[in-house]
Amino acid sequence: MFDFEFYAPTKVFFGKGKQKDIGKIISNYGYKKIMLQYGKGSIKQNGLYDEIITSLAQNNIEVVEMGGVEPNPKIQFVREAVKLAKSENVQLVLAVGGGSVIDTAKYTALGAVSDCDVWDFVVGKQKPKSALPVGCVLTIAAAGSEMSWSAVVSDLSVNMKRGLASDLIRPLFAVCNPELTYTVSPYQTACGISDILAHTIERYFTPCDDVDITDGIAESILRSVISAANVVMKEPDNYEARANIMWASSLSHNNLTGCGRINALPVHQLEHALSGEFDSVAHGAGLAMLFPAWAKYVYTYNIARFARFARNVWGVNNADDKAAAEEGIKAMSEFFKSIGMPSTLQDFGISNDSIERLVELCTFGNTRTINSVISLGETEIREIFKLCTL
Amino acid sequence: MFDFEFYAPTKVFFGKGKQKDIGKIISNYGYKKIMLQYGKGSIKQNGLYDEIITSLAQNNIEVVEMGGVEPNPKIQFVREAVKLAKSENVQLVLAVGGGSVIDTAKYTALGAVSDCDVWDFVVGKQKPKSALPVGCVLTIAAAGSEMSWSAVVSDLSVNMKRGLASDLIRPLFAVCNPELTYTVSPYQTACGISDILAHTIERYFTPCDDVDITDGIAESILRSVISAANVVMKEPDNYEARANIMWASSLSHNNLTGCGRINALPVHQLEHALSGEFDSVAHGAGLAMLFPAWAKYVYTYNIARFARFARNVWGVNNADDKAAAEEGIKAMSEFFKSIGMPSTLQDFGISNDSIERLVELCTFGNTRTINSVISLGETEIREIFKLCTL
Repeated sequence: MFDFEFYAPTKVFFGKGKQKDIGKIISNYGYKKIMLQYGKGSIKQNGLYDEIITSLAQNNIEVVEMGGVEPNPKIQFVREAVKLAKSENVQLVLAVGGGSVIDTAKYTALGAVSDCDVWDFVVGKQKPKSALPVGCVLTIAAAGSEMSWSAVVSDLSVNMKRGLASDLIRPLFAVCNPELTYTVSPYQTACGISDILAHTIERYFTPCDDVDITDGIAESILRSVISAANVVMKEPDNYEARANIMWASSLSHNNLTGCGRINALPVHQLEHALSGEFDSVAHGAGLAMLFPAWAKYVYTYNIARFARFARNVWGVNNADDKAAAEEGIKAMSEFFKSIGMPSTLQDFGISNDSIERLVELCTFGNTRTINSVISLGETEIREIFKLCTL
Repeated sequence: MFDFEFYAPTKVFFGKGKQKDIGKIISNYGYKKIMLQYGKGSIKQNGLYDEIITSLAQNNIEVVEMGGVEPNPKIQFVREAVKLAKSENVQLVLAVGGGSVIDTAKYTALGAVSDCDVWDFVVGKQKPKSALPVGCVLTIAAAGSEMSWSAVVSDLSVNMKRGLASDLIRPLFAVCNPELTYTVSPYQTACGISDILAHTIERYFTPCDDVDITDGIAESILRSVISAANVVMKEPDNYEARANIMWASSLSHNNLTGCGRINALPVHQLEHALSGEFDSVAHGAGLAMLFPAWAKYVYTYNIARFARFARNVWGVNNADDKAAAEEGIKAMSEFFKSIGMPSTLQDFGISNDSIERLVELCTFGNTRTINSVISLGETEIREIFKLCTL
């Protein structure tokens, strides 16, 4: 077991109708003026916006609004939000939405108390020193940003999607009501499930020895998500299934499933290149395509681990390690297909000719390798993307 | 899944040699003057005290010492510590030890910023409003106090051992180095293991429906502790086993294994009466005796759950639920015996005549029942203690 730090200070309010307490929750922290961020307006159609505004008003909390966050959130939007947060002197940024909205809120929170451009933090030119508190009302179980220390943002002008990690942007609180996810489309639900699984599978395969307690927790969370996924794709308003998936979202990315292991999200790096280049690619869908391809390419380098994964997560019974590993990868691949995820670049409408550009983006122009089960350089990443064409 | 709040803000610094960073850690938080609490001096013999003092001095942190905390910590000691903490204006209470020392630090932290007697918080006469921050360097994996919101304390003058729960006393940070537990005696190691298992088993059996994700995590943590226990009783300096047990200690009592379930520690109530009355009873040993007795008494009221417990935790293979449940209880009972835990009152040197007194203490003089798999009143508690005589 490697040394680790575990820090998950976000207070989670989990359960039915909890969004109606938002005003009281913020008021209890002592904040009086906040910025409210949300996406393209679905929360206005389904009544959530009204519930939030009502609760905030009842608790005399002044609201500065900044709706319209896009999927794969954009730095340009963040810059506008930062400007407004500064001029209005807001005390907290409240995200009502999924990972894109929460990530936007995190960058806004950093920018609002900084003098430099927020992109400077993303590319490492500046180190963040403080941030406004961020709160969230989660509307889709996926990114795990509600309890994580990371956030991603894109700059379309340079086709870059990059991430940042800092304890400063761990949300102060997260309001998680599984009922709010009943109306998430089957496709988006499946993307979310893929993202959740990915966060734990990534950590599970970082190159280090088994860590009994962490690996067991990871496997149990994966089994729980897979089982709930099979229910929720048929019954979108099954509370128990939605609740298991939503709580798994938070636990899969607050690093519980990485404690004592090397901490990295290698396949995410490949996906960020993909959805950075092709804005229409949903992050979870990109991951669902990439994981089986990545696994097929790397599993021979740690057959025992892939066999364990197959047996403990996918219920594979084969006593032969190599055969078990292969069955496990097949089961994972079939699972992603069964919930409607794409399995090839063609499924996304992306030409195979794009592979070289993707390799270039993944490797930052052949200047880095990505440490996965093995080190992934140009050659390896090219082969993995080629496996996404079969 | 029931609604829940999850809040585990303690920052955990886990790994080899981490205690040597204690001065830097405290200094990073900005504290300059602290109270250092510890037990009966074993830390002076094994060098830990010197490491702590050196690191604090290197970081110019002024130290007010209060050693001598006893197992089953006493309110009289806390009162002395509070007096000193107030007169010295310390900013943080640092516990170097196990649950008893950390619990003492928690009460000291509450008392240091309050005008009333600390016992008023324990018996509910006053509600705590603030507390000094508490930090800890863990030297025994057991109570889980390093990440919990609870603390127990005894007043021998009235033979009472009682607990208190408040977010105010969740430690700010916990330094967890498994190496520090190499020298814990086999008996104390086993007591700690029993306490860890108890914290998760209690939550696992509270009377509510299955919560897939939480139950899976609980089962995997239990399996991990049992497996590590079998190693560590033979190899006390096995790092991996000590590390799995130590991390399980924190995860078993920060309520991760209770999310979405009814939250209660019913068998702990029986044990608190026992070690409140008999100060020589180690908390974990008391629990190890009580759990099989309690299980034998209540399992018929939820056979399916006990069968699941038997299969998923103890590896029982019996397809018949009742038989599986019984085999699981037997396996648990044998496990506790195998690590050297007492299984009867006689093993503690306690006469069967004490049962009536214990029943009286558990029920606060027949004024309460304890909600377990079933509601435990005078009659039920008496029967459970009688099962501790067989």
